[in-house]
Amino acid sequence: MRKVAVLGVGQTKISEHWDKSLRDLAVQAIQAALQDANERGVEGLFVGNMLSGSLSQQENLATLIAEWSGLRPLEATKFESACSSGASAFRAGLITVASGELDSALIVGVEKMSDAKLLSTTSALATAADADYETAHGLSFVALNALLMRRYMHEYGWEHAAFAPFSITAHQNAGNNPFARLKDEISITDYTQARMVADPINLLDASPIGDGAAAVLLVPAEDFASMSSKPQVDVIASAASIDRIAIHDRSDPLWLSAAEKSAKKAYTQAGAAPDAVDIFELHDAFTIITALSLEACGFAKRGSGPWLGLIGEISLEGRIPISTAGGLKARGHPVGATGIYQIVEVTLQLRGDAGENQVDPARIGMAQNIGGSGATVITHILEKQ
Amino acid sequence: MRKVAVLGVGQTKISEHWDKSLRDLAVQAIQAALQDANERGVEGLFVGNMLSGSLSQQENLATLIAEWSGLRPLEATKFESACSSGASAFRAGLITVASGELDSALIVGVEKMSDAKLLSTTSALATAADADYETAHGLSFVALNALLMRRYMHEYGWEHAAFAPFSITAHQNAGNNPFARLKDEISITDYTQARMVADPINLLDASPIGDGAAAVLLVPAEDFASMSSKPQVDVIASAASIDRIAIHDRSDPLWLSAAEKSAKKAYTQAGAAPDAVDIFELHDAFTIITALSLEACGFAKRGSGPWLGLIGEISLEGRIPISTAGGLKARGHPVGATGIYQIVEVTLQLRGDAGENQVDPARIGMAQNIGGSGATVITHILEKQ
Repeated sequence: MRKVAVLGVGQTKISEHWDKSLRDLAVQAIQAALQDANERGVEGLFVGNMLSGSLSQQENLATLIAEWSGLRPLEATKFESACSSGASAFRAGLITVASGELDSALIVGVEKMSDAKLLSTTSALATAADADYETAHGLSFVALNALLMRRYMHEYGWEHAAFAPFSITAHQNAGNNPFARLKDEISITDYTQARMVADPINLLDASPIGDGAAAVLLVPAEDFASMSSKPQVDVIASAASIDRIAIHDRSDPLWLSAAEKSAKKAYTQAGAAPDAVDIFELHDAFTIITALSLEACGFAKRGSGPWLGLIGEISLEGRIPISTAGGLKARGHPVGATGIYQIVEVTLQLRGDAGENQVDPARIGMAQNIGGSGATVITHILEKQ
Repeated sequence: MRKVAVLGVGQTKISEHWDKSLRDLAVQAIQAALQDANERGVEGLFVGNMLSGSLSQQENLATLIAEWSGLRPLEATKFESACSSGASAFRAGLITVASGELDSALIVGVEKMSDAKLLSTTSALATAADADYETAHGLSFVALNALLMRRYMHEYGWEHAAFAPFSITAHQNAGNNPFARLKDEISITDYTQARMVADPINLLDASPIGDGAAAVLLVPAEDFASMSSKPQVDVIASAASIDRIAIHDRSDPLWLSAAEKSAKKAYTQAGAAPDAVDIFELHDAFTIITALSLEACGFAKRGSGPWLGLIGEISLEGRIPISTAGGLKARGHPVGATGIYQIVEVTLQLRGDAGENQVDPARIGMAQNIGGSGATVITHILEKQ
């Protein structure tokens, strides 16, 4: 298959956009990406979205967005894999261009979570878990992650405060990101005294939901030079993996085996070890997931994830900068859009366009998007040419 | 890209399966397809489904089905494009195998429409239309199609009874299909006297919803001979197209332009004209859509679709047999599964395994799946080798 490059990226601010509908948000991100790409031709539209049916009573979403964007692409499809819907759409768009089936793919992740009518967002998010065997017992999605965090603290002897650096760093980085939802710096005291959500997960362990959209335009790498004067960023690895959906069905709930498999496959494709990765956009929906992701992807030993935060290795100057634009934690987590926000941030970093938060050097960046509590994991690696 | 063949197909009966959940139905169809394929290895799972989030409060559906099927494939994704979700999943699975990214793709379409809790199925189906500009005015999905049918009758001077053969033929063919929901033959009187649903669409113009799942296993065509002793059926064309989603935004609402574009592209890929198509699994959600599809795909002139029914050309012995297993009308329409039921029927026909309803000759078969009132249209052409 042929190589694929990122021609343009765009994003909306993540917020409670009471004045913008689902389609408005998507179109805004698309327009930003097309402007960045200086391009109007789009052959296929790939939409990542989890909740449009249950929260906005809108399905057939990809065709709707295709029309409202004014692009009239050849085809349009929506992809759903809970919070990894964005990466699912990205992977499909990538394969479609890499295979030669289409010559350009616009991928947009969009989620509208304010203004929910039939279902509360908490109930809607719980649809990422097993409806019959987890949710039916009253477990919300945050409660499932709280069980993981409690078990992790018990098993490895960590105090809750050890997770603070993950949250503090994310908030710090979000401060320089105009598209982030939470831009206030937080202190260790803010973290330890934050309101409890589901013990031991407190408000500052959890990412905020939000309305937002992000978009990426992919083209064959061989065409990039003739289309853009920006630094060229290629997608050099794409790997998906899955685990059992219900946490109680996993023999080893504290090991994100799908994250490990997906990352390992991506490393092989990219011919790169974790050492070579300059920035890592991980799926920090909860601080416990940050720790588990760092371990599963080979950046920390089992049970030692929080160390990376405590010794500053995850900061912009550290060994493995994460959440460089605020992450899910502070940029915000409009669930089906998050995977594309991650790709946008990695692209900006590799181009050298990350402003105050620029990591140096930034040659290889990895984005990992997770659906459910580690059930669906999709990893992409991008490289500056 | 390499050629792709159908290694196995499976389906469940379409019914009100009060004793079977969403995952049970999917697994049953998967097991049938794997048994037909005499195969256990599946690299990727592609799930077509429209309503699991709103009717069953279950997202992350593909990973859930992957687990419950016992297959643990490398990856799993759900595709949504309203009633064409099945074909969207099929097209993605096809490209993934054709490109060499994976060596096998299991595509399952599944829908569970009985036992809806939060939303009525009528409201859920209306999410296929434009929520803000159509549904918000109180239009249900059948009402939108009723507007089309009324306009068609007015424009071309047809009486309602002229659509009867579409419905009668579908019921007749379903009688021999053990998986069909409605197996009773109907008469012209049954048709004309049927209860009104949304004038002029009566109960026998409309397809019944239902619970059901269908599955197809795709492998590289070059591997087929070593894996199966069944007749080889290759997918020789796959083409998607879209139109404006709201009917009032189309300059010519009585012409399914996305169906035309999608079919034309497929004919080009297949190197075949409409004349070469031996059976046509079309999207007969309503009798009006049958007429419009036959016209858009080149089997009848504009405004003359009903003639094909009246002169018997759509019967098993006619020029272009349609709905050979009952179609959406009588087999039933579990929306996200329908696109895969269509592929299953085309495969069985081309293999010569269609039993009482076998069309002869059956060398080239076409399946066309429609999402919304003609908004998203995906056409596949299969050929017996």
